[in-house]
Amino acid sequence: MATVYRHDETPYPASGGWTSADPVGHRLFHTFATTRPFSLEGGEPLHNVTIAYETLGTLNADASNAILVCHAWTGDSHVAGSAGKGHSTNGWWDGVVGPGKAIDTNKYFVVCSNVLGGCQGSTGPSSPHPEDGKPYALRFPVVTIRDMVRAQAQLADALGVKTWRAVVGGSMGGMQALEWAITFPTRVQALIAIATCAEASAQQIAWGSIGRRALIMDPAYNDGNYYEAGPDGGPWNGFAIARMIAQVTFRTDTRFSEKFGRELRDQNFNASGTDLFSRFEVEGYLDHHGDRLVRRFDANSYLYIGKAMDLHDVGRGRGGLDDALARIKAPTLTVSIDSDILYPAYQQEIIQSRLKNADPRNRHAEIKSNEGHDGFLIEVTAVGSEIRHFLSETD
Amino acid sequence: MATVYRHDETPYPASGGWTSADPVGHRLFHTFATTRPFSLEGGEPLHNVTIAYETLGTLNADASNAILVCHAWTGDSHVAGSAGKGHSTNGWWDGVVGPGKAIDTNKYFVVCSNVLGGCQGSTGPSSPHPEDGKPYALRFPVVTIRDMVRAQAQLADALGVKTWRAVVGGSMGGMQALEWAITFPTRVQALIAIATCAEASAQQIAWGSIGRRALIMDPAYNDGNYYEAGPDGGPWNGFAIARMIAQVTFRTDTRFSEKFGRELRDQNFNASGTDLFSRFEVEGYLDHHGDRLVRRFDANSYLYIGKAMDLHDVGRGRGGLDDALARIKAPTLTVSIDSDILYPAYQQEIIQSRLKNADPRNRHAEIKSNEGHDGFLIEVTAVGSEIRHFLSETD
Repeated sequence: MATVYRHDETPYPASGGWTSADPVGHRLFHTFATTRPFSLEGGEPLHNVTIAYETLGTLNADASNAILVCHAWTGDSHVAGSAGKGHSTNGWWDGVVGPGKAIDTNKYFVVCSNVLGGCQGSTGPSSPHPEDGKPYALRFPVVTIRDMVRAQAQLADALGVKTWRAVVGGSMGGMQALEWAITFPTRVQALIAIATCAEASAQQIAWGSIGRRALIMDPAYNDGNYYEAGPDGGPWNGFAIARMIAQVTFRTDTRFSEKFGRELRDQNFNASGTDLFSRFEVEGYLDHHGDRLVRRFDANSYLYIGKAMDLHDVGRGRGGLDDALARIKAPTLTVSIDSDILYPAYQQEIIQSRLKNADPRNRHAEIKSNEGHDGFLIEVTAVGSEIRHFLSETD
Repeated sequence: MATVYRHDETPYPASGGWTSADPVGHRLFHTFATTRPFSLEGGEPLHNVTIAYETLGTLNADASNAILVCHAWTGDSHVAGSAGKGHSTNGWWDGVVGPGKAIDTNKYFVVCSNVLGGCQGSTGPSSPHPEDGKPYALRFPVVTIRDMVRAQAQLADALGVKTWRAVVGGSMGGMQALEWAITFPTRVQALIAIATCAEASAQQIAWGSIGRRALIMDPAYNDGNYYEAGPDGGPWNGFAIARMIAQVTFRTDTRFSEKFGRELRDQNFNASGTDLFSRFEVEGYLDHHGDRLVRRFDANSYLYIGKAMDLHDVGRGRGGLDDALARIKAPTLTVSIDSDILYPAYQQEIIQSRLKNADPRNRHAEIKSNEGHDGFLIEVTAVGSEIRHFLSETD
């Protein structure tokens, strides 16, 4: 394969302590590019594909200690480590991945790549179209979870990783992990799928669809051509609404009640009356989360990745769900968060119950938590404990 | 009280069979109007208040057989009976209310009034402002559930009903029923509160807020002044999105999966590729439901009534939830739908558990159903059976 392997080793500044505290590897941001057209599941070719990724730890001599961690909707390659260039916060799974942690970078070589269609270094709708150098916007083709995984497979080839020690992911990351184990059964030694599903449910599609429709209703969306509008001209309002919808489905009634109750943020009803748009605390919280994402994420990427999740169906073209899941050879850990309303526990139980590999190490774990779907990011101790145990079992 | 009691008796056409099949009463659409300024909880006065209502059955001589049925968000006074003038469908609780049904109109005089702030005959944001005769739009003051109930109390006075045999409602109807039993403890002989809450939860407020924000983002909303825009000029898109959000929270994952699965409506992915906005079946369903509401309901009323629900808190100004619920004298039936994600069962259990009337007829019933919150409208047999039993117990 004619790849141009640009090993843009741009170490993050050592500030924040993490890099220097890592006694083994050093965290690197790379890009991997190919000049060969990438053929998408939908049939269209994509040119000049770049995949951004980060690595932690060191690949051993026989390349047998590599773990692929797959990110979710608005995640990126910055899975662990301190804030730094291009990343305003610590890694999104910093509590799970690192030296001595559940996915121990003293032992494993961890790879996390930004998905195809993303906006954090990998090719996506904000990338320049080869013909005119302007952002693809809606000219970008629909991509699927399988496309994301096949792009990662090219990255694995380039890294010299024939078989992943494990492929791990939560939510959309779990979709990728499943597709890995089904598309490349011999390249995955252990599968860890957390708070995810084998096929998008009608309710998940409904939420995704409503969010997309809200985003594109924003006049500033301008049919996807907002890139020249400047920092104040994008579809921030519509994007924030789409994000708010997701944010509520990611959490729980219980957690919201504990955190916010019914306190008014803007004004108190009895003291000074109220108006139609005065806000409660929880509304301010949602505004804040919507606004925060909008500043770091491309709205078109949000739409394309959301669509990829709605199209997720491991059974497509494989004779259905059961036949697809029967292809998995790897021992499989599925993890549920009991309060998850978006990816309810039955969805992970379906995955576990349809395995046909008869591996005694297969295991389903349910984590008790009030955090809802976001529990896969928040409950790092419980999730990490399951991962650590399973990695040890499959050693 | 100086009321102008306009008894606009406009019988519905007898078509559909219901009116003629009713051996006792005849269904009537009335309006009740007052020239005395109505003082709102928020402090503002409202002038020329009209309340539209329908009645079924006949009020007996001592006015002891009147039951008030309260409607939910997008409901109206047409609680039962066939379609007809101003109502394109049968009554919204036709399976529960009628001759021989759970709320038996052979026995009871049933009253259902359109809420203050509504758009089906009662004064609301689409009503003419007294000063200029143009719709209030956003000049309409914020109304609360208590305001709705106090307007109904004036209607009860005008009808000569001192004490309701029962006050009944689901969802926002249940909020009104609760406020009735707390504000006027001696005027309610039995309370039936279904799939409702004593105070809006943070999650409910979050959903309401997101819907409002989506609706007003529609450029055609035009700060609420869309009344002259003509039938194609209103904020249909934003309103439809708001309604879609509500629609998903009203139903369940299970029900959506049974009904739609993942069938593509517009095109099949594998056969002809897909694009970002091709739709699944469930998306078409949501579009349909959004569009349908938009044609029969005023967008500003939707906003105001939604805000009233978010402000719902029986404890406000009464020393909190417990003190408020302790005021209830009436025997109380609370009903939960076990799959309700918007008004989960614990909310009705809170109401039941805080009663201090020590009435042995108090009862909590949980209905097993996959219909979610909408189960209070759909499960007419199970809901009706609980109501029938409770009415008999409290006779």
